[in-house]
Amino acid sequence: MIKQIQQVFSGKELMKGNFGIEREGLRCDQEGQLARTPHPKVFGEKLFNPYITTDFSESQVELITPVFQSIEETHKFLEGLYDITAMEIEQEYIWPQSMPCIIPEDKDIPIATFCGCEPGKEAHNYRKKLLAKYGGKKQLLSGIHYNFSFDEDLIKALYEGNEQEQDYITFRNGIYLKVARNYLRYRWLLIYLLGSTSIMHESYVEECVKQLDEVRDEAYSNKGALSYRNSECGYANQVELFPSYDSVDKYVESIEQFIKQGFIESPKELYSQIRLKAYDNSQFFSSLQDKGVFYLEYRSIDINPFDKAGIKLEDLYFMHLFNLFLLLKEENDYTDWQEEALQNQRRIARFGQRNITLLKDGEEISKEIWGLEILEEMKTMNARFGLEKEGVLEHMTEKIRSYKLTYAYKIMKEVKKQGYIEAHLNLAKQYKQEAYHKRYRLNGYEDMELSTQILMKEAIKRGIKVEILDRSENFICLEKGENIQYVRQATKTSKDDYITVLIMENKAVTKKVLDKQGITVPQGKSFNKKEEAIQAMQYFVGQPIVVKPKSTNFGVGISIFPEGANKADLTKAIEIAFEHDQTIMIEEFINGKEYRFLVVDDQVLGILHRVPANVIGDGEHSIKELVEVKNEDSLRGKGYRTPLEKINLDESAKLFLKHKNMSIDTIPSKNEIVYLRENSNISTGGDSIDYTDRIPSIFKETAIQAAQAVGAKICGVDMMIEDYTDQESRYAVIELNFNPAIHIHCYPYKGKERKIADSLLALLGY
Amino acid sequence: MIKQIQQVFSGKELMKGNFGIEREGLRCDQEGQLARTPHPKVFGEKLFNPYITTDFSESQVELITPVFQSIEETHKFLEGLYDITAMEIEQEYIWPQSMPCIIPEDKDIPIATFCGCEPGKEAHNYRKKLLAKYGGKKQLLSGIHYNFSFDEDLIKALYEGNEQEQDYITFRNGIYLKVARNYLRYRWLLIYLLGSTSIMHESYVEECVKQLDEVRDEAYSNKGALSYRNSECGYANQVELFPSYDSVDKYVESIEQFIKQGFIESPKELYSQIRLKAYDNSQFFSSLQDKGVFYLEYRSIDINPFDKAGIKLEDLYFMHLFNLFLLLKEENDYTDWQEEALQNQRRIARFGQRNITLLKDGEEISKEIWGLEILEEMKTMNARFGLEKEGVLEHMTEKIRSYKLTYAYKIMKEVKKQGYIEAHLNLAKQYKQEAYHKRYRLNGYEDMELSTQILMKEAIKRGIKVEILDRSENFICLEKGENIQYVRQATKTSKDDYITVLIMENKAVTKKVLDKQGITVPQGKSFNKKEEAIQAMQYFVGQPIVVKPKSTNFGVGISIFPEGANKADLTKAIEIAFEHDQTIMIEEFINGKEYRFLVVDDQVLGILHRVPANVIGDGEHSIKELVEVKNEDSLRGKGYRTPLEKINLDESAKLFLKHKNMSIDTIPSKNEIVYLRENSNISTGGDSIDYTDRIPSIFKETAIQAAQAVGAKICGVDMMIEDYTDQESRYAVIELNFNPAIHIHCYPYKGKERKIADSLLALLGY
Repeated sequence: MIKQIQQVFSGKELMKGNFGIEREGLRCDQEGQLARTPHPKVFGEKLFNPYITTDFSESQVELITPVFQSIEETHKFLEGLYDITAMEIEQEYIWPQSMPCIIPEDKDIPIATFCGCEPGKEAHNYRKKLLAKYGGKKQLLSGIHYNFSFDEDLIKALYEGNEQEQDYITFRNGIYLKVARNYLRYRWLLIYLLGSTSIMHESYVEECVKQLDEVRDEAYSNKGALSYRNSECGYANQVELFPSYDSVDKYVESIEQFIKQGFIESPKELYSQIRLKAYDNSQFFSSLQDKGVFYLEYRSIDINPFDKAGIKLEDLYFMHLFNLFLLLKEENDYTDWQEEALQNQRRIARFGQRNITLLKDGEEISKEIWGLEILEEMKTMNARFGLEKEGVLEHMTEKIRSYKLTYAYKIMKEVKKQGYIEAHLNLAKQYKQEAYHKRYRLNGYEDMELSTQILMKEAIKRGIKVEILDRSENFICLEKGENIQYVRQATKTSKDDYITVLIMENKAVTKKVLDKQGITVPQGKSFNKKEEAIQAMQYFVGQPIVVKPKSTNFGVGISIFPEGANKADLTKAIEIAFEHDQTIMIEEFINGKEYRFLVVDDQVLGILHRVPANVIGDGEHSIKELVEVKNEDSLRGKGYRTPLEKINLDESAKLFLKHKNMSIDTIPSKNEIVYLRENSNISTGGDSIDYTDRIPSIFKETAIQAAQAVGAKICGVDMMIEDYTDQESRYAVIELNFNPAIHIHCYPYKGKERKIADSLLALLGY
Repeated sequence: MIKQIQQVFSGKELMKGNFGIEREGLRCDQEGQLARTPHPKVFGEKLFNPYITTDFSESQVELITPVFQSIEETHKFLEGLYDITAMEIEQEYIWPQSMPCIIPEDKDIPIATFCGCEPGKEAHNYRKKLLAKYGGKKQLLSGIHYNFSFDEDLIKALYEGNEQEQDYITFRNGIYLKVARNYLRYRWLLIYLLGSTSIMHESYVEECVKQLDEVRDEAYSNKGALSYRNSECGYANQVELFPSYDSVDKYVESIEQFIKQGFIESPKELYSQIRLKAYDNSQFFSSLQDKGVFYLEYRSIDINPFDKAGIKLEDLYFMHLFNLFLLLKEENDYTDWQEEALQNQRRIARFGQRNITLLKDGEEISKEIWGLEILEEMKTMNARFGLEKEGVLEHMTEKIRSYKLTYAYKIMKEVKKQGYIEAHLNLAKQYKQEAYHKRYRLNGYEDMELSTQILMKEAIKRGIKVEILDRSENFICLEKGENIQYVRQATKTSKDDYITVLIMENKAVTKKVLDKQGITVPQGKSFNKKEEAIQAMQYFVGQPIVVKPKSTNFGVGISIFPEGANKADLTKAIEIAFEHDQTIMIEEFINGKEYRFLVVDDQVLGILHRVPANVIGDGEHSIKELVEVKNEDSLRGKGYRTPLEKINLDESAKLFLKHKNMSIDTIPSKNEIVYLRENSNISTGGDSIDYTDRIPSIFKETAIQAAQAVGAKICGVDMMIEDYTDQESRYAVIELNFNPAIHIHCYPYKGKERKIADSLLALLGY
């Protein structure tokens, strides 16, 4: 099998698979008490949000990634879900540990509530039954569920090289059953390497706490524990159940037997360390038997308090190497392997930090020796397949050699130092702070436009399924219930007509249409020929005017003469404009400031004004120092990955200062504003300032009318206003934009952060 | 005044003005009998079609141009209206003469009918009154009404140079009143130069006919007549009415007096040779008094039988020079000028072909001497202002010298030769034939895309107002009643969502969306990186595949391997595709022929298949000769101005033939098809063949479903079908186009011409 794989697949391809993670986490307050508040409304009905829902308790958030083909994407998405959730739970935190925070007695544990619909009632009642049967406190244990299947191409290739006369589904089932059995055999290693529940709070289940020593106020442990969650104090069936992994039919049969015997009610009550999963888990038995194993669910993994996502990327790499190891590892015919594996689990869970022995085919073997043995095999495999994960395996090898490298040891150490609540809360606070600093972006999608990231983030939050159709084009598909919407670059949607966009794309046509509808636009003329424009020049000489090409954007090819221009300058400007379009426009220049009105569905959601890069003096620091401080703002970055750009004190800025008899070492006096450039582009460090609440409604109405005139549902209206404090001020609509950026309104330099994405989603019918 | 004008305006600018023409014409049958059929339904309700309506009789078409700033545009549009009308009246013709064709007695003349609405009833009843008062036959006289005003900039400039203390409106009224008076004084010259009604049919008004001699069967004239329409046998008030042209107030007052005296019922019954027109002619008096003269209407001009439009471009140039002459020409204080001018009109009308004298300020003067005198003044003016119309003035000078150059003489000559009916019908047939040959285009708009011309033509036909917003972009505005629609390139409209277009623009996204909706598309993969595509190449080697960039059109960057390709060829193809896009696709190649389905509003309006340039042998002619014959088709032209391109026997065609052991001199055997190129582009002389009625509905349904899958209302669906005669044939949708050309379906090389524009207009709500 190894050779077969080697021939067909590269290491890179072998690192692919189908990965999905579910991560639970309790919401707690600032004292580390289980939160009693309801699950945030913005996440919508829990039953229908595929990303963010609750598990047993109303206060137990469950984050679910979609299935990705790469480990990195999965991990990043999980971090993203964390960020989204952390930003919506206000003063609360996500408790970063499988073992609960401070929890009340059963009667006070809030069970998750759902919609009044039939499935909602069922879900709630099921939780009530669990509470009665297993007690509430153990239900509050959180964990990582790791869902995995191999790349189908790999299984197909193995099938093709297979000599037995099996059908494909049986063959594939065979693969997953072998992996499942091996997983159970070797799971102790995963628990050792990833276990993080070496300690519990005194409010946890009394029978557990009372067996342990208080290692610090309120924190209890024995010596050497590694994963209480995987111990008898974890969550398990009342009787140990060993389903058969010989075949799918036998697996189904054994579970049906458990149900018949009254141990469990349904397959989902079987709390085994691994589960075979079907294509349609709502029709579990029949789907599994008809279509075979779809994927495996690993359930042994504790939340890692040292990772925001609850599991480290490195550990996910290791788990996939482990998957491949389990696939290749030959089995022997030792019969009591299930019971033995359970014993090993218990030993590791309770005493994993000690130098213990485990059972291997009935014989005792040192945990370390066996662990190193497995790692050696994995290293050989890694080299053979070119998986390039030597570093990961080396690190795990060291961990086997020294228990002090385990998460279990490390968190214990922190708890002893800071206390159980403090140690965990400080981690949670740090993760929340990180989420805040990255609030403008969606983790894992930083290569996409900010506006798209913001929209995707809002969609995910609301449980709208997001699919990327073309990443480089920021082309996504949103889906919830019956409503499928395609969106490109956040503001190109089904809600605007094509012709509306084409009108906006053509400045001359825009003006004609606006003018027709009585909207004030700059007076002027269009020219298709250079000669005609030059002939008509006499009317414009000496007047305050703007010369611009008909269709380009971003100010390219535009000349502005606020004080008027002579014939030579005008001729030049006309020539420049014609370089960018076949049609140019000469228009009156409107004095004043330019404001961007964002109009969505006949409402002004934001008004923004841009000013050139600048610093404000404090009478103490130099311009250079002031720039450094200003650049520390987490909204400022480089290369358009942030809402604002860092100010660059480049040659052009220095020259600009020089013209004003200043240098970067000049110390501006207190409150003195020093501009560092002429242009107000955000891309050169300019500031964006929110004016939404300052501009009088009369101008907002004009902006809305302008959008309506071209039939636009989403529209950036650029307006020159001489003096916005004067309702009668001279003004003109100078341009309409069909693809307005939303991030500039969401995250301005100064002023209120506007929520735009939710209005866009509302417009799209969500 | 001359100096003032000279300083500010160029000759080119002085040739501008505001021009609009109304041209009447009787519909007649193939025998020259007045048509008894109703006005074609396609023109809609006559009251609301601003371009094509009826005058007095149901059989009297009236063509109305909008106001243009240039003479050329006006004339071309008028020709276009003629073409449109001629194509809709089936076996009938537009009688090309002011004097009627064969007409029945009053009781059998069909009076125009209108909608049952109030204004419709009014219009019909008004015509009934006219019939009773003036008789029906004279109502059937047709003519040209020329509506004119100066470029407002000219009047403004004159006003600024004016020293009197007048308000602007009074000043402008003064200008138009002077022009009107001078027009009346010198109108005899216009009648001489343009008069074309030297003859009448015996079915015309008996009192007129009986005074004349039969110059040929059924045709009557005296000797020397020039314009019976402008004679007593023309259409005039029962009493000669001379309104005052001293001021607008006096003009209004005098007309009110005529009404009070019972001569006429309303201003529009005043059949003067010139009319002052108001901004709002439905509120004639008040509008004229409040806002002044808006334009002038000249009513002396006969239909010119020798021009399709009814008036020659040269004569329109002359008329505008005449306008400028009337503006400049100083008046004297001779009081009886109105009566004198009427006398001159009568003399010219009845005896203009003779060497007669006219009255000038009470003195007799030779027509020729006076005429040459005026022409001399006009020539001086022409030179001074740089109007560059020497040729026109020279021709008119010759006409004054020789009556044989008049239209009146020429048509008389033709009638004598062919007979009254034949002579005119032959001209009408010729114009109709011309209209047919140009049926695919809209006269005057040949620089625009054919699809746009076709849509505009259909809109004009239906009385939908067409405005061009951006000519080079084929951006137009349609308006009828409340419904304003913007359209670019005929098929970019408000009916398609922007995102629908963006989906279609991106082939990879199109495929994903189609696939999601269960539409069969070629199987394949997208790649964002060259390395990835090359790595995946192993799956495609030797397979029939297509390699293409994600977004480009027109086949650029596409490589097709129907027989499969080796690694080297594939690598090359991948590189080529990446030169055109960041994303490329490798897809299975579907065998068969490609068909373009045009789907509009969930209906397949046309299916087209293209074949490479070819000829079919007759066993007699050489390839070269066969190409020459094929190129004679009026649908074939050069430079994309026609639905098909002429076949070019260039080097590439010769080489292609050489490979098949042929040359352009080869004589193919009977029915042998000889292809001249590999590619089937229309641009290289390919043929378009209509398959609309041949393709089974199952494929049509697929095309409709494909359009629906992306939400497209207007969509070109490109489908490969292995064998369309087999309903179960293999097929795949390979591409969707959001801007499908319509002209290819409207005017295919072979097969039925499909009406597409009317469906587009219906989709747009018209």
